[in-house]
Amino acid sequence: MIILMRRGCTPEEVQTVSDRLKDMGYDINPIFGVEKTIIGAVGVPEYDKLEAADQIQGLSGVEEVIFVSKPYKFVAREFRPNKTIVDVGGVKIGGDEIIMMAGPCTVESEKQLFQTAEAVSRAGAKILRGGAYKPSTSPYSFQGMGLPGLQLLKEASQKFGLKVITEVMHVRKVEEVCEYADILQVGTRNMQNYDLLREVGMTRHPVVLKRGMNAKLEEWLLAAEYIASAGNENIILCERGIRTFEPYTRNTLDLSAIPSLNSLTHLPVIVDPSQGTGRRDLVGPMTKAAVACGADGLLVEVHPNPDKAIKDGAQSITIQQFEKLMPELAMVASAVGRELPLPIRA
Amino acid sequence: MIILMRRGCTPEEVQTVSDRLKDMGYDINPIFGVEKTIIGAVGVPEYDKLEAADQIQGLSGVEEVIFVSKPYKFVAREFRPNKTIVDVGGVKIGGDEIIMMAGPCTVESEKQLFQTAEAVSRAGAKILRGGAYKPSTSPYSFQGMGLPGLQLLKEASQKFGLKVITEVMHVRKVEEVCEYADILQVGTRNMQNYDLLREVGMTRHPVVLKRGMNAKLEEWLLAAEYIASAGNENIILCERGIRTFEPYTRNTLDLSAIPSLNSLTHLPVIVDPSQGTGRRDLVGPMTKAAVACGADGLLVEVHPNPDKAIKDGAQSITIQQFEKLMPELAMVASAVGRELPLPIRA
Amino acid sequence: MIILMRRGCTPEEVQTVSDRLKDMGYDINPIFGVEKTIIGAVGVPEYDKLEAADQIQGLSGVEEVIFVSKPYKFVAREFRPNKTIVDVGGVKIGGDEIIMMAGPCTVESEKQLFQTAEAVSRAGAKILRGGAYKPSTSPYSFQGMGLPGLQLLKEASQKFGLKVITEVMHVRKVEEVCEYADILQVGTRNMQNYDLLREVGMTRHPVVLKRGMNAKLEEWLLAAEYIASAGNENIILCERGIRTFEPYTRNTLDLSAIPSLNSLTHLPVIVDPSQGTGRRDLVGPMTKAAVACGADGLLVEVHPNPDKAIKDGAQSITIQQFEKLMPELAMVASAVGRELPLPIRA
Amino acid sequence: MIILMRRGCTPEEVQTVSDRLKDMGYDINPIFGVEKTIIGAVGVPEYDKLEAADQIQGLSGVEEVIFVSKPYKFVAREFRPNKTIVDVGGVKIGGDEIIMMAGPCTVESEKQLFQTAEAVSRAGAKILRGGAYKPSTSPYSFQGMGLPGLQLLKEASQKFGLKVITEVMHVRKVEEVCEYADILQVGTRNMQNYDLLREVGMTRHPVVLKRGMNAKLEEWLLAAEYIASAGNENIILCERGIRTFEPYTRNTLDLSAIPSLNSLTHLPVIVDPSQGTGRRDLVGPMTKAAVACGADGLLVEVHPNPDKAIKDGAQSITIQQFEKLMPELAMVASAVGRELPLPIRA
Repeated sequence: MIILMRRGCTPEEVQTVSDRLKDMGYDINPIFGVEKTIIGAVGVPEYDKLEAADQIQGLSGVEEVIFVSKPYKFVAREFRPNKTIVDVGGVKIGGDEIIMMAGPCTVESEKQLFQTAEAVSRAGAKILRGGAYKPSTSPYSFQGMGLPGLQLLKEASQKFGLKVITEVMHVRKVEEVCEYADILQVGTRNMQNYDLLREVGMTRHPVVLKRGMNAKLEEWLLAAEYIASAGNENIILCERGIRTFEPYTRNTLDLSAIPSLNSLTHLPVIVDPSQGTGRRDLVGPMTKAAVACGADGLLVEVHPNPDKAIKDGAQSITIQQFEKLMPELAMVASAVGRELPLPIRA
Repeated sequence: MIILMRRGCTPEEVQTVSDRLKDMGYDINPIFGVEKTIIGAVGVPEYDKLEAADQIQGLSGVEEVIFVSKPYKFVAREFRPNKTIVDVGGVKIGGDEIIMMAGPCTVESEKQLFQTAEAVSRAGAKILRGGAYKPSTSPYSFQGMGLPGLQLLKEASQKFGLKVITEVMHVRKVEEVCEYADILQVGTRNMQNYDLLREVGMTRHPVVLKRGMNAKLEEWLLAAEYIASAGNENIILCERGIRTFEPYTRNTLDLSAIPSLNSLTHLPVIVDPSQGTGRRDLVGPMTKAAVACGADGLLVEVHPNPDKAIKDGAQSITIQQFEKLMPELAMVASAVGRELPLPIRA
Repeated sequence: MIILMRRGCTPEEVQTVSDRLKDMGYDINPIFGVEKTIIGAVGVPEYDKLEAADQIQGLSGVEEVIFVSKPYKFVAREFRPNKTIVDVGGVKIGGDEIIMMAGPCTVESEKQLFQTAEAVSRAGAKILRGGAYKPSTSPYSFQGMGLPGLQLLKEASQKFGLKVITEVMHVRKVEEVCEYADILQVGTRNMQNYDLLREVGMTRHPVVLKRGMNAKLEEWLLAAEYIASAGNENIILCERGIRTFEPYTRNTLDLSAIPSLNSLTHLPVIVDPSQGTGRRDLVGPMTKAAVACGADGLLVEVHPNPDKAIKDGAQSITIQQFEKLMPELAMVASAVGRELPLPIRA
Repeated sequence: MIILMRRGCTPEEVQTVSDRLKDMGYDINPIFGVEKTIIGAVGVPEYDKLEAADQIQGLSGVEEVIFVSKPYKFVAREFRPNKTIVDVGGVKIGGDEIIMMAGPCTVESEKQLFQTAEAVSRAGAKILRGGAYKPSTSPYSFQGMGLPGLQLLKEASQKFGLKVITEVMHVRKVEEVCEYADILQVGTRNMQNYDLLREVGMTRHPVVLKRGMNAKLEEWLLAAEYIASAGNENIILCERGIRTFEPYTRNTLDLSAIPSLNSLTHLPVIVDPSQGTGRRDLVGPMTKAAVACGADGLLVEVHPNPDKAIKDGAQSITIQQFEKLMPELAMVASAVGRELPLPIRA
C-alpha cells in the first residue's frame, strides 16, 4: 500500500509509520517530495493486511492510505486463470450458453406457479425463480408462503424439468431452503449480512449473490469472498440495479458492472432487469443489452396474469411477452458469440 | 391512495381498478380530466394496504399509485402525541437532556476499554459504546472479541457507572448480547435484515437502529416499525451518514434528518458523527451542529490512543479532545434550550 | 395536478386552495377522506402551469402537489406520433441506421485529426467528433485549440466525407461553431445553462444535448424543451453516464434511459460510452449493449495513439480497436433489426 | 503524483512512463513490489500538472494516477495563512460576525420586496437577497423581472441600509448586474459554466459561488479557482445541498462541507438552508446547525406572504418566523464564540 503523509508532518511521524509497517512485514520505500512525503509499502498481499491499513490510517501525520492490490483473493480474476462455471445439476452457468431463470416474483398458488413454470420451460428457461420467503420493506406486507411455497417450487421443478432458485433470508432456514432449492439467492438487503453469508458459505449449494443497492463493486466482491472463504466457491453474481437520484426507474441498472466484473473476477455474472428497472416495458430491452455486454444469464419475473400478482406485478412480464422475448434474445446472444438454445416446437 | 391512469386507458380498465379497490374496502372517487383519469381511494389506513398498492400498480392502464398517508403506524408522530422517552435504567433518551454515548469503536483490551470508560464517564458521558461483534467489509478483518468483549463492557460499565451500548449482528446472539448490554445496536448494514429486526423486536431491550447507508427516511421508519410491531417500542433512531458521490467524507451526514424525523415520528433521534464523517477533525463541529438542530444524543468514538486503534482510528477522537468538547457542547445545548449536565470536578 | 392537503387542515385552507386553482382555470374535485383531503385539479395542460404548482405548494395546509401530466410539450412523445429523424446533411439520425460518431476527445494537430478521421471514415463512421473548445474542471488544464481546431475539423470532414460534431460552451461563440460544425454539442456541465440552450435554440443547427451528470430524465427533457421552444427541434439526446457512489467507473452509464426515453419522447437517443465509463476496455461491450437496447447512434472517442493523447487517453480506443468493433456492432444491430452498413473493402 | 502500474506491466512500459514524467520535470522514484510497481513522481506542484496526470493515465501499463497535492492554488488554505474576509462595502464576511442574507426567492413587486427588506433589516440582516434573473428548470416558468427587478433591489437596499446579492446567469449581463448588486451569485446549475466563471472573475465584485448539486468539494474549489485565477479573490462559497436518493428533502444539505472547507480553503463559507432542504419547517433548525459547525453566514428565503409567492413559497419562511429565528441564532452563535449582533429595538 501507499501512505501519503500530511504536509508538514514530522520526521518522527514518518519514522513511526515506517516502523509500524516494518513490524507488519512490509518493505518500506519513503519518497521525500518537495510537497509531500510518500511511503511505499510492498511485499505483503493486501487481503492479509486490511487491518494494517485501518491502523496506519489512524496514525498521526497520515493523510491517506491507498491500496495497490485487491483486498480479496479467492474471487479475484488472478486467482483462477479461467472463468468459473457453476454447475447446477447439469445446467452450466458461466459457459457459452446464456441461462434464463424465470418465474413469478412470489409463489402464490400451485396454479400460478405451475402455469408459469410450464410456460417458461417450454420457452427455453432452464431455471425456475419464485419467492417463498420475501423480504418486504413493510412488516405489514405479504412475507411469502414459506415452506409450502418451497414445496410447490420443488414439485414444479420436477414436473417441468427445471432447476429452482429462491431467496434465503434467515440463517436458521438455510438448511430448509437447501432441501428444496438448487440455488440459494442472497438478496440485495442481505448482501452485507455477514452471518447469512457465512451460513450459505458453509453449504456447497450454488449461491446467487445480488448486489447491494448501494454496494461498490469492491464491497460486492468482498461479500462474495465471505462465502468463498467459508468454503463455497459456487457463487454467481447478480447485478440488480443501484440506488441513484433518478426516480423514473426503481433502480439504475448498472450494466457496465458486467464487463467490469468480467475483468475483476472469474465468477459468472447474471442480471435481474425486473428489479433493476421496476418497469415491465424496460425488461425486454435491458435483457438484450445485458446479453450484448457479456451477461451469463438473466433472472426475469414472469407472471401468468400480472394484473393479479400479489407483488411487483408492474415489473413482471407476461408469459406471452416472455415467449416473444426468447427468440429475440437468442439472436443477440448469437451476435456476440454466445448461445441461447430454444426448444424445438412440435 | 391515488391512482393515476395512463393517457388513453379504456373505461374497462378504469372499471377494473375501481372494482378491485372497492373489494379492498376503499371508497372510490374517479376524476375524468381532459388529459388523465385519476382515481381517489380513501377510507382505509395505508399501513394496512401496502399490498393493495402493489397489486393495483400491476393492473393494466395504471400509470402510478401515490400514497397519501404514512405506511407505518406505531412509530408515526400521529400515533403518540408526546415524544417517546426511552428509559435505559434511569438514563432518559428523548427528554431535555442530551445523552452522550462514547467509547472505542472496538473493544481491544481491558486496559484500553477501562481507560476510555473512566475518562468519558468523568467527562459526562452516560453510556459506554464499544464493539464486541464487528461487521467488517472483508472476511479477513478483525471481527471483534465476541463474548469476552461483552464481558469487559459489562465490567467497565459497572465500575464507572455507565450503561452499555453494543452492536448485535446475529439473530442467534441476541439473547447473549441482551445479557451484557443495556442497549442493542442494529448497524447500518442490518437495517433491512428483517430476521434480526424481529428478533430484537421480541426483546424489551432498548434498541438503537442505525440508518441504512442508502435508506430513505420512510424505509428507516418502516424498519423501526418491524421492531415496534413485534412488541418492542424502545427504539432510538441514529443518523450515521448516507452514501453519496462525495469522496472527502466517508459518508454524508444528513443532519436535516433530525428535524425531519422530529416531525415524522415520536422516537428519539441521535447522531453518530464518527461513522458519519470518518474524519476526526469533523467530529467536534458535527456534534455541535447535531445538537443545534435537535438531536437527543450523540454516539462518539473515543480512543485513548487512536494511533494504536485496531479499527477506525482515523475517526476516533482522543480522550483530551472529548474532554474539551463536552463543555463546548453543553453551551450549544443550552443555547437551544437543552441540557448537557457536566460532572463537577474536584 | 393533485393536491394533498395536510392532516388536520382547515376547511378555509381547502377553500383557499380551491379558489386559487379555479382562478388558474382548473376544474376542481375535492375528495374528503378519513385521513386526508385530496383536491384533483384538471383541465389545463401542465406545461402551461408549472408556476401554478409552485404557488400552490406554498399555500397553508398543502402537503404536496403531484403532477399528472408531463411538464414538457414539444419534445413529448404525444406531440409527434412518429420518431423524429434529424437530418445532418443527408446523414439521418433516428432512422433504422445506427450512426457512428467517432474521433479524438480533443483536436491536437492536423496529423492526429486527419489520421483518425481517415480511419474512422474507412471503418464506417459517418460523423467526426473532436473538441476544439474543451470544458476542463481545472483552469490550468488545456482548454482546446479553439478556432484553429474548428478549422481542422472542417477540413478533415471535407477531405474524408464526414459530418462534424463539436462542443459549444460559450454563447458568444455559437455563431462561430455553427460555421464549422454540422452538429453543436451541449456538454453535460451546460445542460442547465439556459442562456446557452436558448442561443443554440435560435439556430437551426442539429444539437446533441448531453445529459447532465445529475439530471433526472424529466429535467433533461425540459432542457431539450428550452431548445425546442426557442424554435430548434433538431435535437438528439446523448446519455453519457450519471454520477453515483461507484468509483470503479468514471460515471454510471444509465442504459435504461434509452428505452425510457423512447417511450417519453420522439427525439433520437445516442450514447457516449467513453465518457460514460472512463475505461477503454468497457467501451466495446457498452456500445453493443447500447445498440441492443435501442440507441440510434454512438459517440466514441478514438485516438491514433492514446498513449500520447492530451486528454482522456484512458477512455479512448485505438484505431485498430475501432476497426475491430465496427463489424461486431453491425452484428448486434442486425440482431435487433437495425442496420450499421460497413464500407466495402477493396 | 503516484503512478500505479498494472500487474504484469513490462519494463519498457515502466521506462516509458518514467521518461515521460522526467520530461515534465518530475523526480522519479520507482518501487518494484512483489505485486505491483509504483512510481512516485515529485517536484512539481500539481496544479501545474493536471494535464500531465491525464496524459500519464492514458499510457500503456498504467493502472491509476493518484494526486498527492491539491490541484488548486489560490483558494487553498496553504496559500493564505489567515482566513479571507470578504468586505462588501463594510459588511465583513468571514470574520467573527455571522452575516445574515435574507429576502424573497424572486423579486415580484416593489411592495413585496420593500416590505421584506424593511423587516429583515429591522431583524438584523445585513444583506438583501432576491432573484431578478431566475434559472428555471422549465422554459415555461417565470424567468424573473430582469432589469426592473435589479432596480427595485438597488432602491430597497438604499432605503433600508442593506447590501444586495442577486444571481447572474448570463455572461452578457454581468456588467449590468454589477451595476445594481453588491454581490454576484453564481447558481448551482452554473457552477461549471466556465465562461461565466471567467467573466465574473474579471470583475472585482464579491461573488457567492454556490455548490453544484453534484459537485465534489474538489470540483467546487476548482470552480472557485477559475474565478480567482482570473483575478477576483472576493469569493464566498455557499453550501446549498447535494442531490441524493432521499426524496423527503429537496436536496441533502451537506453541513460537514463547512468544517471540511474550513480546513481546505481560506475562503468564507455560507449556507442556504432554504434551497438545501426545500421545506420551511427545516430552515430554522438547519440555520442553527450551520452556525454551530462554523458557517460564516446564511442565505435565507423570507417572504411576507409565502402563500402568495410566485416561486418556492414552500421553502420560504415568513417575516414573523425570521424575527423569531434571529435571537435564537444569536444564542447559538454566541455558544460557539461567534457574534450575531441584533438591532436594539425601541
